[in-house]
Amino acid sequence: MRIDIITCLPRLLDSPFSDSILQRAQKKGLVEVNIHDLRKYSTDKHQKIDDYAFGGGAGMVMMIEPIANCIRDLQSKRAYDEVIYMSPDGEQFTQSIANQLSMYKNIIILCGHYKGVDERVRQHFITREISIGDYVLSGGELAAAVVSDAIIRLLPGVLSDETSALTDSFQDDLVAPPVYTRPADFEGMVVPDILLSGHEKKIDDWRFDQAVKRTKKRRPNLLK
Amino acid sequence: MRIDIITCLPRLLDSPFSDSILQRAQKKGLVEVNIHDLRKYSTDKHQKIDDYAFGGGAGMVMMIEPIANCIRDLQSKRAYDEVIYMSPDGEQFTQSIANQLSMYKNIIILCGHYKGVDERVRQHFITREISIGDYVLSGGELAAAVVSDAIIRLLPGVLSDETSALTDSFQDDLVAPPVYTRPADFEGMVVPDILLSGHEKKIDDWRFDQAVKRTKKRRPNLLK
Repeated sequence: MRIDIITCLPRLLDSPFSDSILQRAQKKGLVEVNIHDLRKYSTDKHQKIDDYAFGGGAGMVMMIEPIANCIRDLQSKRAYDEVIYMSPDGEQFTQSIANQLSMYKNIIILCGHYKGVDERVRQHFITREISIGDYVLSGGELAAAVVSDAIIRLLPGVLSDETSALTDSFQDDLVAPPVYTRPADFEGMVVPDILLSGHEKKIDDWRFDQAVKRTKKRRPNLLK
Repeated sequence: MRIDIITCLPRLLDSPFSDSILQRAQKKGLVEVNIHDLRKYSTDKHQKIDDYAFGGGAGMVMMIEPIANCIRDLQSKRAYDEVIYMSPDGEQFTQSIANQLSMYKNIIILCGHYKGVDERVRQHFITREISIGDYVLSGGELAAAVVSDAIIRLLPGVLSDETSALTDSFQDDLVAPPVYTRPADFEGMVVPDILLSGHEKKIDDWRFDQAVKRTKKRRPNLLK
């Protein structure tokens, strides 16, 4: 899979892709993440990429031309399944969208910044608008990293134990049950006996029961 | 405001706090963000911070002891308003929670990784569990960065124009209206005439109307 991220602040995205699972996935050749600096696509001599909003008001708007140049340059080289814009009013990102996007071959993710992008970009160049939640960030960069992380960890071979992602929250419409590790007794706080019993079937039943209880309490909407 | 982030992968958080608004807010002394490497709080000679889950199954669990040591060390130095754990089954993060957290003086954010933290940490040390959305990430680091970003940009003096955050999506339970900037005509794609009219009252009305229409279409839940 290939992910092209377009941003006016490429340095913000340095570290999330330079460590841990995302770095290993790239080293293994399972995903290629390219960060594109929007300023390189500006035709202005000062590499201008934003300007005041027509009609007045606070905040700057990202201009259409550099974005159009960058997207067209990428699209001239390969076909893209989606050109995604990270926006607080986009479709809410969920695990099932992550699953779906992880099947694609090439995607572009455009990060907004300031007051967002010129509306014509959204009308003419974007195929899908995604929000990671009902809150406002200083830019789309962290949101793009969140979406990329959620997708990349689902790619076959990325997680060291293939069963690991399947027992995550949401994959079976249940949140995960509680987990415990050593020591069994920490200052009098103890691990439930059942988990120390070695009785595999009873442990599985307990975990399922706990997952259902926790889902009812915390995410009743997941239980249709 | 002071934010202490506890993580087993501190390098993941390097760049989000080293550029743009978050960096400037720290330089201006408006917020102090401290990243704590959990391994430094391990008493194990190999700086071990995770172990296998009791009861078996895939994935590692973060141990209680290093986390308890780190939280207690911080709490011995100052009082904290909340000790937050980033978890996919936590309370859904929203703009109103961001507003609320931005009023606090000191908060701790614990990032989970692998299969999460030992349940006893959640029972005895955590005061609030927050999820940035219904999807699974490879760790809580990006989620902690998202929450920090959403909070920090609300602190007085962080955004250069004080009115800027007030016109964001969600602050008035409406998503933002479309924005446009120069050129007025890009390859035949034009800006709505009203925005070029210079008629301030009409522009305000148009923007409000557009924000309501867009909210009805994209986030009907915001309109009670």
